[in-house]
Amino acid sequence: MTKNKKVNAAILIIGNEILSGRTQDTNTTTIALWLNSIGVKVQEVRVIPDIENTIIETVNHLRKVSDYVFTTGGIGPTHDDITAQSISKAFGIKYEIHKEAYKILEAYYKPGEFNEGRQKMVWMPENANLILNPTSGAPGFNVENVFCLPGVPSILKSMLGGLKNRIVGGDPILSHTISLQTVESEIANSLTKVQNNNLDVEIGSYPFFQAGKLGVSIVIRSEDQSKIDNCNSQILKFVNEKKIEVVDR
Amino acid sequence: MTKNKKVNAAILIIGNEILSGRTQDTNTTTIALWLNSIGVKVQEVRVIPDIENTIIETVNHLRKVSDYVFTTGGIGPTHDDITAQSISKAFGIKYEIHKEAYKILEAYYKPGEFNEGRQKMVWMPENANLILNPTSGAPGFNVENVFCLPGVPSILKSMLGGLKNRIVGGDPILSHTISLQTVESEIANSLTKVQNNNLDVEIGSYPFFQAGKLGVSIVIRSEDQSKIDNCNSQILKFVNEKKIEVVDR
Repeated sequence: MTKNKKVNAAILIIGNEILSGRTQDTNTTTIALWLNSIGVKVQEVRVIPDIENTIIETVNHLRKVSDYVFTTGGIGPTHDDITAQSISKAFGIKYEIHKEAYKILEAYYKPGEFNEGRQKMVWMPENANLILNPTSGAPGFNVENVFCLPGVPSILKSMLGGLKNRIVGGDPILSHTISLQTVESEIANSLTKVQNNNLDVEIGSYPFFQAGKLGVSIVIRSEDQSKIDNCNSQILKFVNEKKIEVVDR
Repeated sequence: MTKNKKVNAAILIIGNEILSGRTQDTNTTTIALWLNSIGVKVQEVRVIPDIENTIIETVNHLRKVSDYVFTTGGIGPTHDDITAQSISKAFGIKYEIHKEAYKILEAYYKPGEFNEGRQKMVWMPENANLILNPTSGAPGFNVENVFCLPGVPSILKSMLGGLKNRIVGGDPILSHTISLQTVESEIANSLTKVQNNNLDVEIGSYPFFQAGKLGVSIVIRSEDQSKIDNCNSQILKFVNEKKIEVVDR
């Protein structure tokens, strides 16, 4: 049985703190690596501010052009957490207390600690599917192909595992990296030839600095291991001819 | 003389390696912090793959809705570096050898080392303005309100200083952070009131973990220091009333 199906996703990072440069986003990397491992390719990332109309318009665009959309941020208890209400409006569905989420948080907190601020976190789009949070209680949620996760990286990370059975990926995207002690301009022409002979394989070239030396990592990506192996041989052929050293990285 | 002008920018990160999760983007933070310091607010970031049509469409959208657009990546010598040709097509102008860039690289490399691969880096949109590169020679370029920078973070960083006089910012965006030993839900209602009383100030609330303890950083942002001071007083008032500890961070 071959699936041979390409499945893609968009990531939407919601938060002024990323746009201002105050906070370094790392959730893109976390989500992208995890999605790759289950056969989903990220085709676009957007970072937008905590502005309701912007969230609504961006979600409504991305959910139409992508198989899956993952949002991060804006599902906490404070005034700047407006993802849940914005998603409700994007889908034109009610924003209300989610009974299951309410029960989860009521049980999670000590008696008397499930205060008004925390109760804001159980307001969600009607009939949203919960995404359980093993770290800090408050669940994320999912409506159709849109999955809403928190912004705190450690919490987000702990929630991805629970999603695995709800994302239907295609063939896993395989990759192979060859790191060379050279500079890009030395291999550019030869690498272009390999790319032109293998148009359905993605070949990337990335310069790096390591221990004071310049190097280049060539990354070959495909769903088909034999195509990767084939490119690898063609690359190693010109690398040997040029007497370029292959290095660990 | 008051400028009182808002100037915004979009950042466009071009590169499959960011979307695959292989490489962690840090250029957004670098560019955003630098832009803030000269009074330009980043309103959107997009990460897109090395696909010509996607680059063209995205650049043509962003340059119309933003005062400035900064692209990173795709201006090196290899086959996957297609930013310069895509920008030429986006503007409908010729893609050709830039004489000034040619002279710079001819002088930068030792005799005989300015090979075909490296010569690709002097192909640019006709009449592009160069962005000088004090680190590794190959310049970036600018067409109208679009500024194209390399993807390697250390090189990009070294090129921003030279751009300062070409970006006309508005009032600098000031910010003040108050870090508290508390959790968001304890302050959510009080903070909402402060935000509602100061609608033209951006107040963000960001949980953190430090030395095993939970905390919240409140970030107040505005072009007007007196508005920041005013919010700060209102926040410290409820913080004192609630006997919440202010911490260093």
